Parts: sequence; structure tokens; C-alpha cells
Amino acid sequence: MFKFRLNKKDRGSGARTGTLKTTHGIINTPVFMPVGTQGSVKSMSFQDLEKMRIQIILANTYHLYLRPGMDVIKKAGGLHNFCGWKGPILTDSGGYQVFSMSELRKIEKDGVCFRSHLDGSEHFIGPKEAIEIQRVIGSDIAMVFDECTPFPATYDYACNSVSLSVKWAQLCKNFHNSKNQALFGIVQGSVYKDLRIKCAKELVDIDFDGYAIGGLSVGEPDTVMYEIADTVLPYLPEKKPRYLMGCGTPVNIIESVSKGIDMFDCVMPTRNARNGSAFTSRGKINIRNAGYKLDFGPVEQGCGCFACKNYSRAFIRHMIIAGEILGARLLTCHNLHFYNKMMQDIRASVKRGNFCGYKENFLKTYNNKGEE
Amino acid sequence: MFKFRLNKKDRGSGARTGTLKTTHGIINTPVFMPVGTQGSVKSMSFQDLEKMRIQIILANTYHLYLRPGMDVIKKAGGLHNFCGWKGPILTDSGGYQVFSMSELRKIEKDGVCFRSHLDGSEHFIGPKEAIEIQRVIGSDIAMVFDECTPFPATYDYACNSVSLSVKWAQLCKNFHNSKNQALFGIVQGSVYKDLRIKCAKELVDIDFDGYAIGGLSVGEPDTVMYEIADTVLPYLPEKKPRYLMGCGTPVNIIESVSKGIDMFDCVMPTRNARNGSAFTSRGKINIRNAGYKLDFGPVEQGCGCFACKNYSRAFIRHMIIAGEILGARLLTCHNLHFYNKMMQDIRASVKRGNFCGYKENFLKTYNNKGEE
Repeated sequence: MFKFRLNKKDRGSGARTGTLKTTHGIINTPVFMPVGTQGSVKSMSFQDLEKMRIQIILANTYHLYLRPGMDVIKKAGGLHNFCGWKGPILTDSGGYQVFSMSELRKIEKDGVCFRSHLDGSEHFIGPKEAIEIQRVIGSDIAMVFDECTPFPATYDYACNSVSLSVKWAQLCKNFHNSKNQALFGIVQGSVYKDLRIKCAKELVDIDFDGYAIGGLSVGEPDTVMYEIADTVLPYLPEKKPRYLMGCGTPVNIIESVSKGIDMFDCVMPTRNARNGSAFTSRGKINIRNAGYKLDFGPVEQGCGCFACKNYSRAFIRHMIIAGEILGARLLTCHNLHFYNKMMQDIRASVKRGNFCGYKENFLKTYNNKGEE
Repeated sequence: MFKFRLNKKDRGSGARTGTLKTTHGIINTPVFMPVGTQGSVKSMSFQDLEKMRIQIILANTYHLYLRPGMDVIKKAGGLHNFCGWKGPILTDSGGYQVFSMSELRKIEKDGVCFRSHLDGSEHFIGPKEAIEIQRVIGSDIAMVFDECTPFPATYDYACNSVSLSVKWAQLCKNFHNSKNQALFGIVQGSVYKDLRIKCAKELVDIDFDGYAIGGLSVGEPDTVMYEIADTVLPYLPEKKPRYLMGCGTPVNIIESVSKGIDMFDCVMPTRNARNGSAFTSRGKINIRNAGYKLDFGPVEQGCGCFACKNYSRAFIRHMIIAGEILGARLLTCHNLHFYNKMMQDIRASVKRGNFCGYKENFLKTYNNKGEE
């Protein structure tokens, strides 16, 4: 069922457009995937997302496994049936959360024993379990179970971690036998180029439907993230989709597209929204600022999103400051629209052979420091 | 601009249907007004409310006065422009909140000096200020500034309170000179029938566009609320709308309609929703209950609301337990639909001369105790 087709390559950069065919629909790449950790993209209904033409959402295996639990998802007939989202879903493997959120018990050769961050209950997830859970969830794209190496990590730690992750990746591949679900490998190796290359090569030997670069967007400087992407990408097959996990800011995304990344996910547009931060073509603005108190214009002039067409900065500022849910909804809607529109513009610019011009213009206008 | 027309009176009860003509549209009564305390009905967009055919919303003067503040509302050109809601708005006078939420400084003859519950800043609101604030807000229906007598209150306290409230009501009437805004008086008098009657008579002498019964739904038994309504209603002019402030449960509303009340407001459908409580024709259910974990049916079979048409009990339960905003949105949507549909059904039953049959059926099915 799963098929990636490379449609156009940019002449002046590594940027490319493609189409990802999945069980629940076709995705145009490069694509940004809003994060729906617990089965909803925070504050949005799935009808909102459809109206905004969101192509694919990401859901977190670790969270769904703990709550509502696999009995519920299984009985519902998978996550699509449970939550009502009709489009494609990508699930992470739970590895990242097991290592970052839970009280870690013990890394064993077959997986990790950990305690739930919700109630302290004891669980075990390894490659076999992660694949089984994602099979029950019924995501269109599953990820291998890996150890997300913390940042910073010593060379030795990263080296062992890569070995373990590659071994687990092979086990995931062995256990995975769904025709309706793609399986992506994840390149780890921290900031060590040789480890990254080694990991990429070994994963490509195993042969996955797509490849992610993991362990980035975890606190390292942007330059390091770009360097690692530059290091890894030449070792990934051109005809497979490439996913930079957890990335990023609009600038991070545009830079990474120009290197040849096809897929992105980040909590930034949704989490920032709930804190009152809105993305505009000039950069981020914080709607709480006193300057917007009497500003009855939209968050961004000319923006076609629901929030900008119907509500003012002054009103949204009041909503956010007063702690009203509507404020979070409106800014989430705006920020997701901003990200989605940016990806549309990126794809259009690659198609018409002008990605570098688009990128230059975007970066000239966009203030990456924050407030406009 | 404001005009109330009595359309039909029920033969077997005091129930009646009417139409309220306001600056921002015509309202069919009996009507339930969702509460939009800070300028939004919590978790709903105004477009959601329009789609649900909500006829009128209530906004709280005290809250809007403190935040965003009158400079913002004034500059926006009133609350309608500020928030984007195109239908009618009723504002309370702020009296209830000044007495119940703020740190009270001093009741003076011209009003109340109090400290904001938000930042402790000192403010003064009396009849003159309340009318001025509501003029700036630009609500379609304004309420007089009164002392909402606490429950319980001694006879002497209630007696003095009534005298003060009537004096303030007269001042409000004197200050109020908007053709685009109706002004309602509020009958106080606690549980003392003679005080209630005295207050009603004196307010009717002043002559308002409509009359509210205040100081109820504040913790007294339902029987007391019904008795006070029975006591007061005969003294209110038949051709003016009657509003039972802060009422109530579905059963409270049906009983009060049968006595001749036309207007209702209550935080119950919205606040309960955020706590996981949903209204159904069989009574309230708590969606958190384990019994709904694997229940993939809608909150109420046959319900035409957005939540019931698209989401299951099991999914909404998961959303509420996981603290996801979507859970609050879906149950708010359902509960407001339930209240609105009930009011539609009430109006239809009065029109076809079968309100008592409708009421009997409703009460037979509806479990007022809670869980179905």
C-alpha cells in the first residue's frame, strides 16, 4: 500500500517534492505533521484539521498505550475509528517518551522496563511490543523502537546506543508484517558523524520504507542539527522519504527542506499557541504584549485562517490573558495554518523551480529572534 | 427598538411563548442564555454558537469591566464588535460579582467600593457606573445594579437590601437613556414573601422593559425557589418578559417555564461539561465513569449535536480524563445543544397546546438525581 514517489528535485538545493501514498490517503511532501499526543491535536477537533487541509497527524504510542490503553484502541478497531480522524497517522514508537518521561527501570536486551508517569505502574516495551502496539493503533506509518540518545552524550554512550538501536530496528523489521502500515528506521548517533553514518548504513541495509533522523531537536544548537542532517542525508536512499523528528521552527524547517528532508513534526505551533505565541511571516509575536491591547487587526494581515478572518489581536489577547480556551483554539488554528501554508508555499516553489528564491525571501522577512 | 410580544399562553399552566425584539435580532421565548462571562462561552467559538442556533448570550459586566477593561471595549465599539458575536447579548449589572467575588470595601449610598479579585485594585460601581459600563458594552439587555442578597439572610438584612436595591433601580432607570438597549429590574427580598411582593410592586411602578427574579439559585432548596417564583409572578406585568436569574437544571427550567418564566441563564451546561458531566434525556451522566470506557456509542443516541454525530462516549471519556481541551469542547457543545433543544421543544409544545404533556413526559424520563 505504502509508496513514495519523488516528483521534483530543486536545482539549487537538496529540496524536493514527492507524494506519499498511505492507507488513509496521499500526502504531498515536504509535509508538517501536527502532534496529537493523546489522540487529539490539542484544542482542535478533527473537523477543524480537515478544514485546514492538514494531511497527516502524529500520535504518541507511549501516551496512547498508557491511556486510554490498548484494550480501548483495540476494541474501537484502531485509532482512526477511536478518534474519528480519517487521514493518515504516523505513530512514534514510544522510545522517546519511555526514555524521557517515565521512571526508567532497566534497559534490557529485549526492551525497556519502566514505570508510567501517570500512576507508577510497571510496563515493558521493546521492539516486539512497540510493533504490536502500533499494529493495534493502526497507524499508516510506524516507527522502529529505538533509544533516543540524550544530549549531550559521550562517544561511548552514543556508540553503544547506536548498536542497541540498530539491533532493535532489525527486530522491529522482523516483527512487522503489515501491508497497510509503513515502517521507518531512525538514525541515531548523537553529534558523532561516524556513528551517524554507521547507523544510517546499517539501517539502509535492513531496508525500511522511510528513514528518520532522531535524537535532534533535543537542545543542541541549530548548527549541529544542520551538520548532522548534512552528514546523514547522503547515506539515505533518494527514493525513500526522510523525516527529521521533532523539527522545528519555521527557519529550521526551511533549512532542512533545502537539505532534502521531506517530513517534520513539532509541538511548537500548538504548544506556543496555548502560551499566547503566534507565528507570522515577520516572526513570532506574543499576543500577551500590551502593544496588542487596542490592536483590532488580525494576528496577521491577509492570513486566511479562521482566527484571522473572524477575531482580532485585541480579542485573542484578552482570551489568552483571561485563560479562556477560545484563545488557545484561535492561536492553535492560526499557527497550524501558518505551518501548513508554509509547507504549501515550499512545495509550490520547488515545483516552479524557485525554492531558493522563496527561502531567501522568507528568511529576509522572518525575524528568527522572536518579537516582530 | 426593544419589544416583547406574548404569542401564546398555555391553558394548563403558566407557560407561554413570546418574541423579544432586540437591536441584534429576535429571540423566541422561553429562552436559555449560555453564559459568556469574560466575553466567550467557555471553549466555544461564536461560529459554533451560531451553528447551534444559540439565540442570545449573557456576559458579565464585572468581569469585562476589570478585564479587558472599558478602554478596550469602548475602542472596539462595544462587545459585539470586540468579540464578533452578532446576536443579542444580555449583561448583568455586576452587582452579583461585586458582592460575591470581590473583596468588599464598603456599601455606600451611591454604590459599592470594592477590590478586584484579579489584582486587588480599588474600584467603585453604583447604579450610575453600572449603566454607563453596560452602555459602553452595548448589550441589548442591561440589568439594574442591585444588592444580590446572600442566602440565608435575616429579615432585617433582606428588608434593608430591598430598599437599597429599589432605590438603585430607580437611579439606573434615571441614568439609562439608550433606545437600543432594554433595561430590566431585579426583584430581590430573599425568602420573605412580603419583601418579594413589595419589591416587585415598587419596581413595576418604576416601569422596566422586563423583570428578573434575583437572589435565587444561590443555594436555597428548589421548593423555596419555586415558591418565590409563585409569589412574585402575579405581581409582574403579563406583557413584559420575566427572567429567573441563574436558573438552572433542566427540571428547574421546565418547572419555572410552567409558572410563566421566559428567560434563563446558568453556567451548568458549560461548567458541568468541563467536569465531564453530560445532560441526556434520561438525566446527567458522568463521562468519566468506567462504564463508558468501551462504549463507542454517542453521548446520547439520536442527538443531532456535533459531538454526538462525530465522537463516541469512549473517546470523549478519554479526552476528559486526559485533560484534553477537545473533551471540554465536545461536552460543552452537547450540553448547550441539549439545553437549546429542550427550549425548542418547550416552545413547540406550548404552541401546539401540549406543554403539560411534554413536561410530564420529560420528567418521567429524566432522572434528576444524576447518573442514568
